[in-house]
Amino acid sequence: MTRHPLRVVLVAPRNPLNIGAAARAMSNFGVMEMRLVNAYDVAFREAKSAVNAAKVLEDAREFPTVADAVADCTLVVGTTSIGPRALEHPLRRLELGGRVIARKLASAPVALLFGSEKFGLSNEDMAYCHWLTRIPTREEHQSMNLGQAVAVCLYEILRNPTAAKATPAKKVAASAEDVERVNQMLAEILEHSGYIKERTGESMHLKLRRMLRRMDMDAHDAKLWQGMLRQIRWKLLS
Amino acid sequence: MTRHPLRVVLVAPRNPLNIGAAARAMSNFGVMEMRLVNAYDVAFREAKSAVNAAKVLEDAREFPTVADAVADCTLVVGTTSIGPRALEHPLRRLELGGRVIARKLASAPVALLFGSEKFGLSNEDMAYCHWLTRIPTREEHQSMNLGQAVAVCLYEILRNPTAAKATPAKKVAASAEDVERVNQMLAEILEHSGYIKERTGESMHLKLRRMLRRMDMDAHDAKLWQGMLRQIRWKLLS
Repeated sequence: MTRHPLRVVLVAPRNPLNIGAAARAMSNFGVMEMRLVNAYDVAFREAKSAVNAAKVLEDAREFPTVADAVADCTLVVGTTSIGPRALEHPLRRLELGGRVIARKLASAPVALLFGSEKFGLSNEDMAYCHWLTRIPTREEHQSMNLGQAVAVCLYEILRNPTAAKATPAKKVAASAEDVERVNQMLAEILEHSGYIKERTGESMHLKLRRMLRRMDMDAHDAKLWQGMLRQIRWKLLS
Repeated sequence: MTRHPLRVVLVAPRNPLNIGAAARAMSNFGVMEMRLVNAYDVAFREAKSAVNAAKVLEDAREFPTVADAVADCTLVVGTTSIGPRALEHPLRRLELGGRVIARKLASAPVALLFGSEKFGLSNEDMAYCHWLTRIPTREEHQSMNLGQAVAVCLYEILRNPTAAKATPAKKVAASAEDVERVNQMLAEILEHSGYIKERTGESMHLKLRRMLRRMDMDAHDAKLWQGMLRQIRWKLLS
């Protein structure tokens, strides 16, 4: 299997738990190439001993500068939690940005940059980026945890936009005959227990019939209902 | 501002960092109502002292059972990292499931369940769910960190602000509480009539629970069922 051409570049990460979490999310989504720039040394070493995603961390490479870390990539995208404000860069919402990245990945490596937990990407880091992307968090609490931000970005880039159109496994609908059998057994039980009365019977039968059709039973459930109702009827009449 | 109608229900979480991370992701996306079932006590107390997302944790409520935690919700969705395998429930990929949830949220509260870090949701927890959803992780490393899974799910459900404004479903769905009432009455009748037997009772109860959730009852039908079952029960026991 060839390696996924997306490189996740962590710039100046400080917390080993976050590096480990980012690696785990990468592993979950099959993005195996982590790059670190100016990582706090102890943090990196501690992260390496974390369980899960061991492969990603083992293979993670350190670079002295952002320029080195993104050298082989044809598209470099920075992440930010900040709205448009004084950004010098074009900003794309992740939904759109993710699609652009996914298209580009078909032909060449792309780097996705995440800044330090405290300060995000610096202006200098951003200067290496073609554009920035942002996860649509609410204004009052914009900044996401690093590991979670990596997870959300990878999910968006790698999810299959056509998958949403797929229909869930089609269940086998119950035949009209089976539904009618359920209907008749239930009607009999309800008459016997006095719920359906002589006087109001007809409208109640219609109501019952409509309700059972609304249930949209599958074939398996129709059999289950028949079994249950048969037993209740037997008990009522015995 | 009215509260967001999505409830994030953590079932048996063990790690305070994960509870804190889930709360932070919730706060990022403006989903403020966290519910805990059977949380490891120390974990919850430690999480409460975490920075960020303080409001979400402060307001988090504990419930004795899943049934109680989802009682006011009309749609209950469980998360799983497992593929279709032997799941008894319909499974929707998150892209599709998120859209269905977003539509439902326009008219009523929805509960999204996450299981414990180690075991996920139990079969019993799942029996309260209308269906399950799964983040499309790779087969070799399916299981995501809890906080990251919450972040990705909320991102997907909330990312398209217009999705929530889509036309609400016409019928008013039955609350989980009403469905549970139908469930209990039917179970009682089936036990009394000998359909559910001591020996095989537990799996039959789960089967029944799942079947009733598949029915996707509306509020009116739930009342109708309650009326019918009350009468049958009365007749059986008299």
